[in-house]
Amino acid sequence: MSNTGQGGNVDTVGSVDKKIRVVLVGGSGYTGFEVIKILARHPQAELVGVFGPKGELGPMEGFYPHLSKLCALDQELFEPDRLKDMGADVAMLCVPHKVAMDYVPTLLDVGLRVIDWSADYRIRDAAVYEKWYCPHTDKQHLAEAVYGLPEFYAEQISTARLIANPGCYPTCTALALAPVIRAGLVEPTGIVSNAISGVSGAGRKPHPKFHFPDCNENFGPYGVGNHRHMPEMEQTLSDLTGQAVELLFQPHLCPMDRGMLCSIYARPIGDVTEAQLTECLQAAYARKPFVRVRTDVLPATKYVAYTNFCDVAARVAKGHVMFFSALDNLIKGASGQAVQNMNVMFGLEETAGLY
Amino acid sequence: MSNTGQGGNVDTVGSVDKKIRVVLVGGSGYTGFEVIKILARHPQAELVGVFGPKGELGPMEGFYPHLSKLCALDQELFEPDRLKDMGADVAMLCVPHKVAMDYVPTLLDVGLRVIDWSADYRIRDAAVYEKWYCPHTDKQHLAEAVYGLPEFYAEQISTARLIANPGCYPTCTALALAPVIRAGLVEPTGIVSNAISGVSGAGRKPHPKFHFPDCNENFGPYGVGNHRHMPEMEQTLSDLTGQAVELLFQPHLCPMDRGMLCSIYARPIGDVTEAQLTECLQAAYARKPFVRVRTDVLPATKYVAYTNFCDVAARVAKGHVMFFSALDNLIKGASGQAVQNMNVMFGLEETAGLY
Amino acid sequence: MSNTGQGGNVDTVGSVDKKIRVVLVGGSGYTGFEVIKILARHPQAELVGVFGPKGELGPMEGFYPHLSKLCALDQELFEPDRLKDMGADVAMLCVPHKVAMDYVPTLLDVGLRVIDWSADYRIRDAAVYEKWYCPHTDKQHLAEAVYGLPEFYAEQISTARLIANPGCYPTCTALALAPVIRAGLVEPTGIVSNAISGVSGAGRKPHPKFHFPDCNENFGPYGVGNHRHMPEMEQTLSDLTGQAVELLFQPHLCPMDRGMLCSIYARPIGDVTEAQLTECLQAAYARKPFVRVRTDVLPATKYVAYTNFCDVAARVAKGHVMFFSALDNLIKGASGQAVQNMNVMFGLEETAGLY
Amino acid sequence: MSNTGQGGNVDTVGSVDKKIRVVLVGGSGYTGFEVIKILARHPQAELVGVFGPKGELGPMEGFYPHLSKLCALDQELFEPDRLKDMGADVAMLCVPHKVAMDYVPTLLDVGLRVIDWSADYRIRDAAVYEKWYCPHTDKQHLAEAVYGLPEFYAEQISTARLIANPGCYPTCTALALAPVIRAGLVEPTGIVSNAISGVSGAGRKPHPKFHFPDCNENFGPYGVGNHRHMPEMEQTLSDLTGQAVELLFQPHLCPMDRGMLCSIYARPIGDVTEAQLTECLQAAYARKPFVRVRTDVLPATKYVAYTNFCDVAARVAKGHVMFFSALDNLIKGASGQAVQNMNVMFGLEETAGLY
Repeated sequence: MSNTGQGGNVDTVGSVDKKIRVVLVGGSGYTGFEVIKILARHPQAELVGVFGPKGELGPMEGFYPHLSKLCALDQELFEPDRLKDMGADVAMLCVPHKVAMDYVPTLLDVGLRVIDWSADYRIRDAAVYEKWYCPHTDKQHLAEAVYGLPEFYAEQISTARLIANPGCYPTCTALALAPVIRAGLVEPTGIVSNAISGVSGAGRKPHPKFHFPDCNENFGPYGVGNHRHMPEMEQTLSDLTGQAVELLFQPHLCPMDRGMLCSIYARPIGDVTEAQLTECLQAAYARKPFVRVRTDVLPATKYVAYTNFCDVAARVAKGHVMFFSALDNLIKGASGQAVQNMNVMFGLEETAGLY
Repeated sequence: MSNTGQGGNVDTVGSVDKKIRVVLVGGSGYTGFEVIKILARHPQAELVGVFGPKGELGPMEGFYPHLSKLCALDQELFEPDRLKDMGADVAMLCVPHKVAMDYVPTLLDVGLRVIDWSADYRIRDAAVYEKWYCPHTDKQHLAEAVYGLPEFYAEQISTARLIANPGCYPTCTALALAPVIRAGLVEPTGIVSNAISGVSGAGRKPHPKFHFPDCNENFGPYGVGNHRHMPEMEQTLSDLTGQAVELLFQPHLCPMDRGMLCSIYARPIGDVTEAQLTECLQAAYARKPFVRVRTDVLPATKYVAYTNFCDVAARVAKGHVMFFSALDNLIKGASGQAVQNMNVMFGLEETAGLY
Repeated sequence: MSNTGQGGNVDTVGSVDKKIRVVLVGGSGYTGFEVIKILARHPQAELVGVFGPKGELGPMEGFYPHLSKLCALDQELFEPDRLKDMGADVAMLCVPHKVAMDYVPTLLDVGLRVIDWSADYRIRDAAVYEKWYCPHTDKQHLAEAVYGLPEFYAEQISTARLIANPGCYPTCTALALAPVIRAGLVEPTGIVSNAISGVSGAGRKPHPKFHFPDCNENFGPYGVGNHRHMPEMEQTLSDLTGQAVELLFQPHLCPMDRGMLCSIYARPIGDVTEAQLTECLQAAYARKPFVRVRTDVLPATKYVAYTNFCDVAARVAKGHVMFFSALDNLIKGASGQAVQNMNVMFGLEETAGLY
Repeated sequence: MSNTGQGGNVDTVGSVDKKIRVVLVGGSGYTGFEVIKILARHPQAELVGVFGPKGELGPMEGFYPHLSKLCALDQELFEPDRLKDMGADVAMLCVPHKVAMDYVPTLLDVGLRVIDWSADYRIRDAAVYEKWYCPHTDKQHLAEAVYGLPEFYAEQISTARLIANPGCYPTCTALALAPVIRAGLVEPTGIVSNAISGVSGAGRKPHPKFHFPDCNENFGPYGVGNHRHMPEMEQTLSDLTGQAVELLFQPHLCPMDRGMLCSIYARPIGDVTEAQLTECLQAAYARKPFVRVRTDVLPATKYVAYTNFCDVAARVAKGHVMFFSALDNLIKGASGQAVQNMNVMFGLEETAGLY
């Protein structure tokens, strides 16, 4: 792999003192926490700084006692000037939407490549973004951003300056559907994605809905008809398949820490068999280290928890085709995928740090 | 005690020594356990005997230490002759399918009314039953059995000798769909019922899938395309709506003790609105004590856990109509519904013992 | 309503329009919720009003969607004048300490008997109370209050105007230790009570410690050396045994909804055997419907969850005596015990509404 | 780095094709599964074979679908001859006690160093072992075995052929107590260790006690007065402190996957302060990468779950000294500790593969 762009330091990899230097902006949430742990074990990258807003500063082990003796960094005040002198290569940007598009121009200006966890650069059409989120104030970089689903966009990712790290639900849905719609095996419309997520997907802020005695042993739907990941899913699938994909997405909250499972119902095109669907998925993912096509064993969240894997399976029943897709919302659905993107960006082994 | 018809013994109620006398056949499973607890608090019924197979005899508190000082009965060997002399009114039959149809003729013979928890008398068409289960050996009583969904069949239940207590999934699905299909608001075909159940639904027998460290924090599908509750659902809905209903049912195992939620996706007939669907459900259940039509708050399993309620709600989104339906699989999905049936059979207050 | 002694109103029971009329002050917390459910099934008591502070008013099903079709009451503004005209017999007072002692004089003044859930009337010595809580502003009624542990104080409870409903940990500890210390089998000092509680014990207010993804699958100690239940335990045990009891109490938070278990370590007096300890407990609780002395099966929280039972067991090992004691923190540790107290106060069957 | 003992292959480290070659005997249990995952990310070791008994053979991903695309090995029949030709350096022996001592002589004979997970080589005194377990049939190697607690026995471990990998409870207890007893701050007798463990500690075999609906939301004691880890704890602490240590150990089962917490109660020697105890622990573990001495934040299982850390803290209250100690029973309590031992044995960085 030749990387003649911003990835000028690819050739330095392999030597202990020339690791990829990573800064994390926004370290106090669950995804920040996860990426810190992944980087602690990454053989070719190291975390050199963590930055956050006033009022959320101090030792990372203060936010996460889990990190004692694992990460000695403080979360320091985010000041662009400081970033200049750190010799950093890439910024992991774990801040809410809207804040992200305030920070991205600055980070790019100081010469960093950026992997943005927020929704701000995922929706290519600013009008669609603005319908679901808020006014978009960085349309310039929006045009440049690459959607960071490495199973499909590795080439663009490898040279990108700005990655829009996908949402967890869109990743889980796209990995199951993209190959089979693209292959003309499944109708691109009338799809239902019935999804469940562990509670960490809701973030770290206490709320009555996530208060243990109310949330534990409780399962129910939320966000009916209006979840913001729906347009992201449709855009990604349409882009990947060359057809206008239309789906209904319905999430549910499941009383467990982490894990996501999409049960997807669609209509076959012609007399599609289970074997055809499975072979189509197997062909798509044969050389992809993190997608596993299941046959005998159905996907379940525990098989992928704490890993960067996404497990998919196809079934046919009573005139419907069904897909099951499972991943860890914090890893393949966020922090692991970000590191996978980083690995691709810097020409490292795609799996580095992720087993 | 003589029972001369629909609630002929109502006038006996209120006097301590004229409670409905109940025998339980098969007390060692979860549903037997639940019905014992319900009967312990029932003001107008009392459990007078528990019977089981050789090898599973002894004090009920030996099977369930929870029952100390609550139920002093032993599980005794099931012998039809013994049942004759007990002056019992009704048998709760909590045994596996196939065993049930061996016992039912005997129980009816000794003059008991019978509420059967198994699948043996639920499927009216013996050929359909035999396709999904095993040969049917009691077709005579099959013809007589009444499907025990009191919200719809109360009149037949009140005079029935033999009740087929519905499955948990069919109850949950039928209560959401029957009114709206009957009212012509929703297409009777192409329906998907995506369901989840707590693990108690799988019974009390240990198995690797239900071993705590494998089952906890794990969510996944099972029984793809072949769950035995599917024909029961289609029969019940077709019977209740006068149309051939066809649906795909997909269950999932959710890491919690109890609770069931069906997320149902269907196609509207015409320009159906959410308000129309909700009003239709509200009209159907206005006088039904155990079905609650939700509007602002969506159904969730914790609102119904440990109760005989079923919560339903309707939504419209992206061309689909959606229904959410939640109940406790062991109560409204089994033991509570059996007691509700018993209350209706004996002319008691429908809610007696069930709050 | 006149109450001229221990159960003077027993003869009113049985007639629908002469049920005990209960008002609940403070219905929005978990214990208020539990007592509403218990009263909904209580054959001889009915909830006639729920009162709360400004800002927390409205339908009870708004606070707890579980209560739809079960409790039609609104939480109304707490105004003493309104209480006068309700013909109520007893107030269940579920408000925080300090607020309780503001309300108690008013409730007694309007002629109600009061069962107070807070700590305000539990500690007989105002100086001790003030050391652990805050200044005591109702010492007059403090002197009159009866500690509501019906297994030991039933006679005083039956005629009391004001009951201090015990804490969950003190109930769990006292029921295990009182008989054996009183019988001279166990040293009254040097005792360690290592306790665990489900998360509902922490109340309904969201907090990072009880946020599902941080709390779930997490077990740890809290309140080291300074839990406010310690002086209550020592007072109760000293009072019941006639000796100065001294113990170290150490609670832990356990990732489950409800349930409490105390593992108590003490020193035997002389050559005490397990059999002696067990017999002592059995003698103490033979006629007590809610305490179960375990022998073969050890206490565990699931045997008592959702019930008013407390299970206790004694063991001897390596020179120590050990006691295990389990109850449901919201039932026998709060709302069930309050109803048990009410039953005793009004001469009802002690178990009414509690099975 | 020079390593002149059995670790003759230390100098090979650093080159990709000279990784430590590991065989795993007994791959189908939870600890086998964990060590496979750790080795998959270990930079200087690789798993080259997995062996098991007849009837448990086949692809590792058949036992653990989690391992697809992560471990391509089959569990093959354990035959000593096969092991000879593999060029393996070390065997991880994850089989039950008794089986272990059948295998160890063979493994040593073919030139492997052995890390044994079972209890067979932990108890130095064969008579004590035989009292708690079964007849000991390999006393020869028992004499040679080194107890694999690297925080205290690193020097012996570095040259050992045979490591007895400690039990989870003994590790958790010893790390909290050894320094303070050795320093003369705490009485060596009259200690109580009240412990809890997640359910994975019970192994992978289904049993009614670990059946999800019975185990979930349930907390209770087990193994009263007779847990086999008690003599191991006393031996280790006596050996480490030079005094006869005597303690009562009481375990409890906690409804969570993994994690262990010991709450230890002991008597101070003289006027010991919390600061003295904390300083003693800090001095002991300042250079130990996996033990963290907590001060403000108390140990809790979630801070150590999925890691090789053990967190300890000391407190003083009401005349007692208390210690809290937490670890992950499968990692620091089993598989992580085994890899830590391997790292020490082969002169690798102690933390290699363990972050």
